[in-house]
Amino acid sequence: MTSSFDLNLAPNTANYAALTPLSFIARTAEVYPERLAIVHGDLRQSWAQTYARCRQLASSLQKIGIGKNDTVAVMLPNTPPMVEAHFGVPMSGAVLNTLNTRLDAETLAFMLDHGEAKALIVDPEFAGVMAKALKLRQRSEPIYVIQVEDELYGAAAEQIGVIDYESFVARGDADFDWQLPANEWDAIALNYTSGTTGNPKGVVYHHRGAHINAISNVLEWDMPKHAVYLWTLPMFHCNGWCFPWTVAARAAVNVCLRRVEAQAIFDAIRSHGVTHYCGAPIVHSLLVNAPAAMKQGVPEGVKAMVAGAAPPASMIEGMEAMGFDITHVYGLTETYGPATVCAKHESWNRLDIGERARLNSRQGVRYHLQRSAAVLDPETMQPVPHDGQTMGEIMFQGNIAMKGYLKNPQATDEAFRGGWFHSGDLAVQHPDGYIQIKDRSKDIIISGGENISSIEVEDVLYRYPAVLAAAVVAKPDPKWGETPCAFVELKAGAQTTPEDIIAHCKKHLAGYKVPRAVVFGELPKTSTGKIQKFELRKQLGSASAISV
Amino acid sequence: MTSSFDLNLAPNTANYAALTPLSFIARTAEVYPERLAIVHGDLRQSWAQTYARCRQLASSLQKIGIGKNDTVAVMLPNTPPMVEAHFGVPMSGAVLNTLNTRLDAETLAFMLDHGEAKALIVDPEFAGVMAKALKLRQRSEPIYVIQVEDELYGAAAEQIGVIDYESFVARGDADFDWQLPANEWDAIALNYTSGTTGNPKGVVYHHRGAHINAISNVLEWDMPKHAVYLWTLPMFHCNGWCFPWTVAARAAVNVCLRRVEAQAIFDAIRSHGVTHYCGAPIVHSLLVNAPAAMKQGVPEGVKAMVAGAAPPASMIEGMEAMGFDITHVYGLTETYGPATVCAKHESWNRLDIGERARLNSRQGVRYHLQRSAAVLDPETMQPVPHDGQTMGEIMFQGNIAMKGYLKNPQATDEAFRGGWFHSGDLAVQHPDGYIQIKDRSKDIIISGGENISSIEVEDVLYRYPAVLAAAVVAKPDPKWGETPCAFVELKAGAQTTPEDIIAHCKKHLAGYKVPRAVVFGELPKTSTGKIQKFELRKQLGSASAISV
Repeated sequence: MTSSFDLNLAPNTANYAALTPLSFIARTAEVYPERLAIVHGDLRQSWAQTYARCRQLASSLQKIGIGKNDTVAVMLPNTPPMVEAHFGVPMSGAVLNTLNTRLDAETLAFMLDHGEAKALIVDPEFAGVMAKALKLRQRSEPIYVIQVEDELYGAAAEQIGVIDYESFVARGDADFDWQLPANEWDAIALNYTSGTTGNPKGVVYHHRGAHINAISNVLEWDMPKHAVYLWTLPMFHCNGWCFPWTVAARAAVNVCLRRVEAQAIFDAIRSHGVTHYCGAPIVHSLLVNAPAAMKQGVPEGVKAMVAGAAPPASMIEGMEAMGFDITHVYGLTETYGPATVCAKHESWNRLDIGERARLNSRQGVRYHLQRSAAVLDPETMQPVPHDGQTMGEIMFQGNIAMKGYLKNPQATDEAFRGGWFHSGDLAVQHPDGYIQIKDRSKDIIISGGENISSIEVEDVLYRYPAVLAAAVVAKPDPKWGETPCAFVELKAGAQTTPEDIIAHCKKHLAGYKVPRAVVFGELPKTSTGKIQKFELRKQLGSASAISV
Repeated sequence: MTSSFDLNLAPNTANYAALTPLSFIARTAEVYPERLAIVHGDLRQSWAQTYARCRQLASSLQKIGIGKNDTVAVMLPNTPPMVEAHFGVPMSGAVLNTLNTRLDAETLAFMLDHGEAKALIVDPEFAGVMAKALKLRQRSEPIYVIQVEDELYGAAAEQIGVIDYESFVARGDADFDWQLPANEWDAIALNYTSGTTGNPKGVVYHHRGAHINAISNVLEWDMPKHAVYLWTLPMFHCNGWCFPWTVAARAAVNVCLRRVEAQAIFDAIRSHGVTHYCGAPIVHSLLVNAPAAMKQGVPEGVKAMVAGAAPPASMIEGMEAMGFDITHVYGLTETYGPATVCAKHESWNRLDIGERARLNSRQGVRYHLQRSAAVLDPETMQPVPHDGQTMGEIMFQGNIAMKGYLKNPQATDEAFRGGWFHSGDLAVQHPDGYIQIKDRSKDIIISGGENISSIEVEDVLYRYPAVLAAAVVAKPDPKWGETPCAFVELKAGAQTTPEDIIAHCKKHLAGYKVPRAVVFGELPKTSTGKIQKFELRKQLGSASAISV
């Protein structure tokens, strides 16, 4: 029998609306029309203007036949059109596919084909590579190409668009009556994983998840209304961890940035009053290691979010010394960006900075509106004991996990097997419930039957003053199976020897964990600052390089 | 054809979880187990303890046969069991029915019958009235009565429970494995409207809406983690505007308060570092009008939320003078409490306090996660022009509207007619989009064919120094149909005459709006501080008293 609490009480338009981050910009434009939304060079654009332009963009897209579940790809740095694409594209009903601007033409061609993009918005800086990608693609359906002009870049080497972005926007209706998604489970974005081997997988986000993680960002940072957010994190990376939507929800300011450089970041902090920014460890290291003169006049208390790799303790220590308030989050493309946070405790303030940094370097606890983050034994799907010792795999349940992989049911099923999203990261869970990554499944080094966490060894390397960046990978070994090999990038002007580095490691590590070899040189990195260990493995011809 | 963005991409347990505010306490207890959750007299209870007790309560309820869609009524002031009931009751699957502690036994009996309560938790203060209500009820099904003991109250006049609350909690399992609601549309709470005529209507809340409005509260106040919230607003009123859930989401502190008194409030602010509280205008007036000595040592910047009636400008002015940061919200039982906010603008700070108070006295714009709040012509369902003149009815669309009225499909349909929730409040919308109530539909005075806003007249009365509280209602008049009659409660020791008051009104109002009669005396108020105009109308035998 239907309970009285359900009888004649079905949802209707008065009491139910699809959750979507698109609602955020509508409200902000309504309540704070005159407030600043976007800073880019000399451009100052209000929320009313930005919302009007997003509606124009959506309207123009519909005029060229773009609609529900069509893909619109964008090849854009962190510029105003990229902010606008996060609203204008889904307001047309389409799915936003942000392409990684560091990729090669072949990979981009694969993504255009696989994602079936019908339109493409291109920054002048990437007209060349996209021209090649468009030629390399297999599909015969045309792509409508819109080319951005940006005086901060200058003239494009090539003109590949049928129209320029401003003209395209101008053709649209600023009062365009966009609709909420019919279902909050409808796709809003498509993000390809970096895919170190095989073809990239297309991660599909839905409106509900994007809404919920955008709000989680506010909750974690206690982010106030009208904060000033600097775009150091690429918006093509997990939709900037949902921050384009978070910034709109807060009626905050997007400070755009074409290129991540220490001088430009410190300048933005000083001149625009930046209060918040995000980035991979490499971004923060850039600031920590900048000359003192460059840091002059930068206020204390800027809030930084770090993720993308476990930040070494030494880096957290450096950020604290600089007066920045750093929050460590962890997640994957599949989790809309952050899905755990190393939530800080007042009691930690009484500890010395080394211990505090050690606690902060952990991946922590589930993000605010995520249901569950746990370390499970992937065989039994049971939680590991919270002993800080027993390894398992980090898994998630809740609204901050992708809809699945596009046109890849096998990979989707595999990722969700047992009713949990599998991160592929190996970790322990401490007695306080905090998760700590020990390694990517594929990065663990197995030497004489013992597991060696490459992160643990790297952390020791980062404590050595001359070291700017370090990565440890498995080197095939006839006796031990594998041994750790360290690749080290030194700070400018620093000098040291492999022997000195090994001696340093011996002081801090069990013997079997000490690298047997040290290789100096610049480290290969992805566009988001992750060190590409697979490239290093290739150099060593290691077993892991083949198996991943 | 199914789009690739929908194919094989259905929700599963890894990527979908029902939205519910119950998740908030689980995360807070997990991440901040030692932080203070509840202060009550000498009691200091952490979040770990509170979560364990809520699970025990849920477990014990299940042991006596309470489960999904069963009603558990509570007759409790703002004490720890009331906080716990907001989690423990729905964790058992049941629906929480908070009873208004100011009600008479007959009305309470009606609610127990209509809501079909299977269990009841009673504070010692209300054992007497509930004993009567239990005798008056018509249903024969037994109600399991649990009686709270509270040394801050003392011994109950009567023992009506089959068990005391502590023993009942103690029987439960602290590790009780509560489940998320099967559907986020499932009922979480039942709140009866005050119902000035006819039987009260049972407003049903669902988990989704309670989650979403609890988060909206955080967004409006920029409420930081670990805020200290004082319970001046009754939790029985719209579930304390969802704040029991908001406080849990922020790992904040619930400072309980059995009775709303100025001394107790100022003491709590001083001794517990209260940062936030809510209340009807009467609560804030109490503080504004308290002796200066009582306010000694109270810090600036305490955040107060006011709703329940349009606050007169003079009161907002008084709060500002006291250094409190006041936010004006508006809503109804049907909208989970606040559904609009008078969002403030920096530019207002440059205006004089009178003008600022005038702007702040408006009901404002839709609450953060509400889809739409608008003033519509109830005949045509079209928006009124934003001219600050044209009256219409305030209506809402979105997730912050009730599931409907329990066992009352006719009232539900009426409330949702045309796909909008009808507030029954008459308002205008200003050129900046801000809504301003002109009157409750039933409170408008029609004199010689002209509409007189009772609020406008009251606002003028409140500016008169001797006036503590004022209400203006229609008095039947053979010539004009109705004329305004003022009921005025004077400040302690103040002296004035009806003639003086009328003279004051003539200075500020058009002639036809000036009250024809002024009656001095204490005003009848509801438990939430709303002045009961229907009682005043009864005194006048006015037409409105009959028609409402």
